[in-house]
Amino acid sequence: MTSDWLNISAKALDENCRQQALQHQAMLTKPPGALGVLEDLAVQLAAMQGNIHPQLQQLHIIVFAADHGIAEEGVSAFPQSVTVEMIRNFSHGGAAISVLAREHGATLKVINMGTVTTPEPLEGVTDISIGRGTANFLQQPAMDSRQLSAALNAGKQATEHAHQEQAEIVIAGDMGIGNTTSATALACALLKLPAERLTGPGTGLDQSGVNHKIEIIDRALAYHHDHLDQPMEVLRRLGGFEIAGMVGCYIACAQMGIPALVDGFIASSAALVAVRIQPSVIDWLIFAHASAEPGHAQIIQALQAKPVLDLSMRLGEGSGAAIAMPLLRTACLLHNNMATFAQAHVSEKNDSQK
Amino acid sequence: MTSDWLNISAKALDENCRQQALQHQAMLTKPPGALGVLEDLAVQLAAMQGNIHPQLQQLHIIVFAADHGIAEEGVSAFPQSVTVEMIRNFSHGGAAISVLAREHGATLKVINMGTVTTPEPLEGVTDISIGRGTANFLQQPAMDSRQLSAALNAGKQATEHAHQEQAEIVIAGDMGIGNTTSATALACALLKLPAERLTGPGTGLDQSGVNHKIEIIDRALAYHHDHLDQPMEVLRRLGGFEIAGMVGCYIACAQMGIPALVDGFIASSAALVAVRIQPSVIDWLIFAHASAEPGHAQIIQALQAKPVLDLSMRLGEGSGAAIAMPLLRTACLLHNNMATFAQAHVSEKNDSQK
Repeated sequence: MTSDWLNISAKALDENCRQQALQHQAMLTKPPGALGVLEDLAVQLAAMQGNIHPQLQQLHIIVFAADHGIAEEGVSAFPQSVTVEMIRNFSHGGAAISVLAREHGATLKVINMGTVTTPEPLEGVTDISIGRGTANFLQQPAMDSRQLSAALNAGKQATEHAHQEQAEIVIAGDMGIGNTTSATALACALLKLPAERLTGPGTGLDQSGVNHKIEIIDRALAYHHDHLDQPMEVLRRLGGFEIAGMVGCYIACAQMGIPALVDGFIASSAALVAVRIQPSVIDWLIFAHASAEPGHAQIIQALQAKPVLDLSMRLGEGSGAAIAMPLLRTACLLHNNMATFAQAHVSEKNDSQK
Repeated sequence: MTSDWLNISAKALDENCRQQALQHQAMLTKPPGALGVLEDLAVQLAAMQGNIHPQLQQLHIIVFAADHGIAEEGVSAFPQSVTVEMIRNFSHGGAAISVLAREHGATLKVINMGTVTTPEPLEGVTDISIGRGTANFLQQPAMDSRQLSAALNAGKQATEHAHQEQAEIVIAGDMGIGNTTSATALACALLKLPAERLTGPGTGLDQSGVNHKIEIIDRALAYHHDHLDQPMEVLRRLGGFEIAGMVGCYIACAQMGIPALVDGFIASSAALVAVRIQPSVIDWLIFAHASAEPGHAQIIQALQAKPVLDLSMRLGEGSGAAIAMPLLRTACLLHNNMATFAQAHVSEKNDSQK
């Protein structure tokens, strides 16, 4: 397996289409700019899709799940068994992302990238088991090179599959007990910030739990200190299988020209890694929401992104992105279906105010 | 016509139901609190509807339209003819709120409260013509007492109609060239703030236009200065027919026990008046979005409200509320359809972290 494909630039946005979409927006029966961010989203999607009238019916959600060696350091409020239990819940339709996927008419694929125990075969779940969870990165790199390549390639393959099924937008979700610790360590390494600045409660640690998590991350950053110059190496040493899968997914989305709607903290840490590996990826990312996990704001700032929603969510699974999805669809709906001033015989702005 | 009904308190929220909904939330397969504001909304709607599993299928949108005498002072970027032109656009399905109502399967009713010219009969539009627009409140009160009562009662009647049709939530929208000037004057009078603190571009004034609008509002506030102690009198002197209709609608919603999803600046100014007339109304209002119109933040702060969205929108028509509607539905959907820990056999939080 090779990771050479990571060096291919993102597809170029269609700037001609963006201009036409902007002109179309200006003709719709509303004061110019009155739909705010929804206008920006419609125009951005037009440039991404090369379609003046962007379409978002075909939503594909890919949830990457994996276990984390670092969980043995007691960094999560939930036991590690929850990773596999939630994979079952995704398949059986009871998880937030399952409910949202049904509501949105989305395709939901779960990829078990490697868990400590292997669940029975489950509908909608592909088991590629790169390992029985990552290694504990307090003691060694989380992955070896073969595992890292496999995880990135799994993200690419899942995206290729979505592309073959005419996905008009992709959401990558995460599941993995311990993964806020991995995501925080990744972000600290890439942003060169101490753990204290980014670490949060994850699934619900109390303050002493957060303090312990900070200590673990700082120790890990010190342990790997001399090897954190390259984003791929940072990902190999501190990442998770599911986070690497998301990195591969975002880079592949950008290369194939599929908009990716980025979820919260874990997803944004993967987006940060993806952009550091291949900067042109940023053009294809739409950030769905500002996570309640405190480190998210640092990643968002570094990426100069503006999340659509800010609802204090911190669930993962791609749920925050799926929750933002109706807003993107509404943006397209209004852009594509409102009458123009001419069609509706509505007077435009007074000349003196044009 | 009497306005005595305004003195009736809002229906009490079902606190028992709120507690049960909170308990139900805690059992769902996610870290406690991980769905943030969506959890709060589901629980709030449960308390409003007296239903542990709140439902929001039946959405009724009532757009109140009217002309404003103050428009003759040159306070809008658009000509006054746009009020009637947009009423036609609502009816013909080309306006933002028309597109959104169709998408949401909502009932859309437009009430022409009184415009300078009278449009031909239009489907979905009820013409109650309280007057040919309000009077110019720079020279006299915007309405006489009879007109104020008629406008408030029209809001009540429209809400009763929605109630009869089993509305589970109501959006009141506005259309009226010049109405940000009226709404700003109302808010300034009730919040005791100078026009400079609240006045914005409305549909798109440039800076000199905003300065002129500030001067007009300050002059109006000075003219009516000795008569601004009672919210009803403030509304009569500085309001609009459509704003008074929305005031009546919000108070009636609260009395009948229907949640009202409040749109942006105009709607929030009406909500402020409603709450000043009948403070218990606040329990039944959900604020959909933070408007880009600068005065909105002042109103929201005074009402201690937290809007769901912040997307720099400033269109009116109820559009911002309709755009937030899918989030409320998603909140209910997740609350009502996610599996519990027990159902999904998912382990709960570690005891040490409970």
